Amino acid sequence: MQSVAYYNGEMAHPDELRVPFLDRVCFFGDGVYDATMAVDGVVVFFEDHLDRFANSMRFVKIEPAWSREWLAGQIQRVVDACGAPSQFVYWQVTRGTAPRAHEFPQVEPNLWIYAEPRDFADLDREVSLVSQVDKRFSYCNVKTLNLLPNVLAAQEAVANGCHETVFVRDGYVTEGSHCNIHMIADGVFVTHPADEHILPGIARKHMIAACGQLGIPVEERLYTLDELMAADEVLVTSSSSIALRACSIDGKAVGRRDEQAYQALRQALSDELAAYVNTR
Amino acid sequence: MQSVAYYNGEMAHPDELRVPFLDRVCFFGDGVYDATMAVDGVVVFFEDHLDRFANSMRFVKIEPAWSREWLAGQIQRVVDACGAPSQFVYWQVTRGTAPRAHEFPQVEPNLWIYAEPRDFADLDREVSLVSQVDKRFSYCNVKTLNLLPNVLAAQEAVANGCHETVFVRDGYVTEGSHCNIHMIADGVFVTHPADEHILPGIARKHMIAACGQLGIPVEERLYTLDELMAADEVLVTSSSSIALRACSIDGKAVGRRDEQAYQALRQALSDELAAYVNTR
Repeated sequence: MQSVAYYNGEMAHPDELRVPFLDRVCFFGDGVYDATMAVDGVVVFFEDHLDRFANSMRFVKIEPAWSREWLAGQIQRVVDACGAPSQFVYWQVTRGTAPRAHEFPQVEPNLWIYAEPRDFADLDREVSLVSQVDKRFSYCNVKTLNLLPNVLAAQEAVANGCHETVFVRDGYVTEGSHCNIHMIADGVFVTHPADEHILPGIARKHMIAACGQLGIPVEERLYTLDELMAADEVLVTSSSSIALRACSIDGKAVGRRDEQAYQALRQALSDELAAYVNTR
Repeated sequence: MQSVAYYNGEMAHPDELRVPFLDRVCFFGDGVYDATMAVDGVVVFFEDHLDRFANSMRFVKIEPAWSREWLAGQIQRVVDACGAPSQFVYWQVTRGTAPRAHEFPQVEPNLWIYAEPRDFADLDREVSLVSQVDKRFSYCNVKTLNLLPNVLAAQEAVANGCHETVFVRDGYVTEGSHCNIHMIADGVFVTHPADEHILPGIARKHMIAACGQLGIPVEERLYTLDELMAADEVLVTSSSSIALRACSIDGKAVGRRDEQAYQALRQALSDELAAYVNTR
């Protein structure tokens, strides 16, 4: 039950494993990734994550020779090697190893995987947010390894004593530095459209589906920071936090005024996750 | 006279050197770089590049303990180890090595350097350009390791049988995927303002200075792709190509109508470079 890292089939503790200096990730961040949790050896919502990973690869034109089944098997191998009952599991593909030149080299992609013991975020934890201008690129729908703006934003949140960022682009809320953000306003679940400015989160997708089952109307539309501040609930979702409630933005109390909808959504997602794990 | 790679003091051929799996460059592209040429062991416009590198580090809040002099010495060491009369020399700093988490870890930054035998671009080579929408982030003034959009654009240029990209953002020309772009129109040297949408190129800086010496007026202002297509000259500058002339954009012939200004600028930059090398 310890962290395990994998690089093109080689496995070791992450502190011990070394990778080529000329892997294109080192100069360009030239790759894409995906990540989720594993519970009792079951990779949570694995098909969703493999689908999104395939989309990311297609977008950046990384075309490995391996099959989806083979990839899933390698990820499972790392999860099994870690062995923890609750894990964070992460995988990425980089375009390959070649002397630095922008254009695509004629080489095979590299597969990276790691798993580490980690519990899901405590769903009772309420999170504080700080707003920041969203200066990121227009490829936010792709899970690329170009995450420096997200790193700077996450650090800025910590420096402000907060848990996460609310990115605001041209006056509209997009998402967090590593989560999606949504609101419940007047009984309606409102979330940014799945365009090039946000990641199409898997938890977001399941939350939208849960709204459908619970009879909560969903609007995928642009909304402002002022609207978010005035909303009945501010929700933060990701594959490792599922559904957290935000309690403040920029130091002002927000949300926490639609207990019923929040609890129903949180329960629905928890139930779905448990059912997923128990049926595999 | 062969390529040399350096990682935190360890030196080897780039094909042989390996780096930690957990270097933050591998997951976030969390670092900045700079690059130039070295001629007869002299790193070209070294002070300019060290200044820009320091600015890039400051921007992303990477604060190594080393001094500028020590850094320069390490770079020189790699250039000397390579030994080629004409080299491309590249260095980067990454935030450090730590388990993947967005927030800054409390660790020391890592220093990467490499040098490889390479000649300057042939100044008589005329380049063809293809225009593409600039979807990059608003940190283009910083030489970060988040270059996937530049990689995709460079590859798209090659796929179109071209040498480089002309990025167009909100209707205005910004720069190329790894060069600055300028025009000479009616005797005036026009270039995008040095804001967050372009890299403040060292060759660009020296070209602006050369314009001053030659009595060519300079305008740092926004301009459209149509203006560029109609310009008397379209110029492409970078630290390894100095000043190349573009002959086509999107398959249409452009520029090559102000031979005198072009030749004067090219000569001025070549002379300045030679003088820099000869006086060190």
